[in-house]
Amino acid sequence: METVSTNRSHGGTQGVYSHASSATGTPMTFSVFVPDHAPDAKLPVLWYLSGLTCTHANVTEKGEFRAACAEHGIVFVAPDTSPRGEDVPDDEGYDFGKGAGFYVDATQEPWTKNFRMRDYIEQELPRLIAAQFPVDMARQGITGHSMGGHGALTISLRNPGRFRSTSAFSPIVSPLHCPWGEKALTGYLGEDRANWREYDAVALIEDGARLPDLLVDQGTADNFLEEQLKTPLLDRACREADMPATIRMQEGYDHSYYFISTFMAEHVGWHAQRLKA
Amino acid sequence: METVSTNRSHGGTQGVYSHASSATGTPMTFSVFVPDHAPDAKLPVLWYLSGLTCTHANVTEKGEFRAACAEHGIVFVAPDTSPRGEDVPDDEGYDFGKGAGFYVDATQEPWTKNFRMRDYIEQELPRLIAAQFPVDMARQGITGHSMGGHGALTISLRNPGRFRSTSAFSPIVSPLHCPWGEKALTGYLGEDRANWREYDAVALIEDGARLPDLLVDQGTADNFLEEQLKTPLLDRACREADMPATIRMQEGYDHSYYFISTFMAEHVGWHAQRLKA
Repeated sequence: METVSTNRSHGGTQGVYSHASSATGTPMTFSVFVPDHAPDAKLPVLWYLSGLTCTHANVTEKGEFRAACAEHGIVFVAPDTSPRGEDVPDDEGYDFGKGAGFYVDATQEPWTKNFRMRDYIEQELPRLIAAQFPVDMARQGITGHSMGGHGALTISLRNPGRFRSTSAFSPIVSPLHCPWGEKALTGYLGEDRANWREYDAVALIEDGARLPDLLVDQGTADNFLEEQLKTPLLDRACREADMPATIRMQEGYDHSYYFISTFMAEHVGWHAQRLKA
Repeated sequence: METVSTNRSHGGTQGVYSHASSATGTPMTFSVFVPDHAPDAKLPVLWYLSGLTCTHANVTEKGEFRAACAEHGIVFVAPDTSPRGEDVPDDEGYDFGKGAGFYVDATQEPWTKNFRMRDYIEQELPRLIAAQFPVDMARQGITGHSMGGHGALTISLRNPGRFRSTSAFSPIVSPLHCPWGEKALTGYLGEDRANWREYDAVALIEDGARLPDLLVDQGTADNFLEEQLKTPLLDRACREADMPATIRMQEGYDHSYYFISTFMAEHVGWHAQRLKA
């Protein structure tokens, strides 16, 4: 692991790091915020998965999470959204290929070699974080935005007990039922929709996966709400499964970091309550 | 005035606007955050002047001021740092010409036509803000970063009584005594250093200008501290003039928005105390 940069911020260290990933076969870059802490202390970890077109940098610069993470003593990890590099295949659209890994392990060519973001986020990066940072991996939470909200929900639903807390900002709740999901999952996983269900939060709940609870914020002025995000499908799935979920429609807010940053401190506090209980 | 964009954020509206400036002879873009407020309410205003290479966008995206401004009911205005456009003269360096207006009215060619940032910030933009936004111009505060900290200090010192509160993040305290200042003021104002003194916070204090008080934060790990910013010169000038000033050296912090955002809420609170007294 190489240190790209460190900056002192909000009583802690905001770092950016890179490493050679065996999962993706490429260098991968991620950011970690570590609040000041007692020597030998192991802090809870909050994972943040980013949305389409983003790298680690968007939330690191615009997310307004550091004050709350410092207050609660929580490490914040922000990975990239796909493999990068000239040799990595890509698509002309912003919503498939680089910047759009969808947190899946691709089974279709030419994507199988590099597009293994599920393996990277579920297996490889946690091992690296556990080895290199002062974290208590028994106390992990996960959140994310849009495609990253989809990532947070599906990874948490597939790994019961790993995360003590799960939340999302404007998540894609069902790739099976939106153009972004249909394009990406057809491309990465092929035409058989049965193979998509483990990458679909609503389908996972329908198929029996459960979380102890869930916090979702969704802006009512979000241009993607109706066609792509479809929050009501998640609300219905949770109700039908009798799974506790706090799904809040936030009046007038859109899909941007102006929205995310508004509710970030509240999400960090919500995770802290569960991670430090 | 045209609205470029508005986003709901932190219980208010973050807008970006543009207008044809008579001071600079160019279109100028600026951002304004307006917290939700009672109908007919007039809110205090905090001006934020940005540093070298910045536009309105840097602090708007990375400044972390909105939560505090919403809490205290303060409008936050962030102008650009120079005129822009293909017809505007420029310099190859990042520290002169576009993105580096230094908040002066140029007297040297080819800069006189467009580089009138003092006139723009002191006269034209306040009139526009007063006419277009729900602000109480009897309650203004001013702050800024680096070149913008220089702007905030000098504008406030030259206009006694206009600002109820003045602060700065890592300001250039004396353009007369640093390479950035020498290059820019020679270029905009000519060789006669007597003409620079009204654009130098330390010189203005030496020449008798006073503020009721002052808050300055400066990182000790700031690469520009020793050669360009020279905080001790301001500290000495304030002591010799018996002018109250809180100048804080912040251990380990650098020149970036990771530093600014850390102390932004505290500055907003400091201004709020004086603007709402």
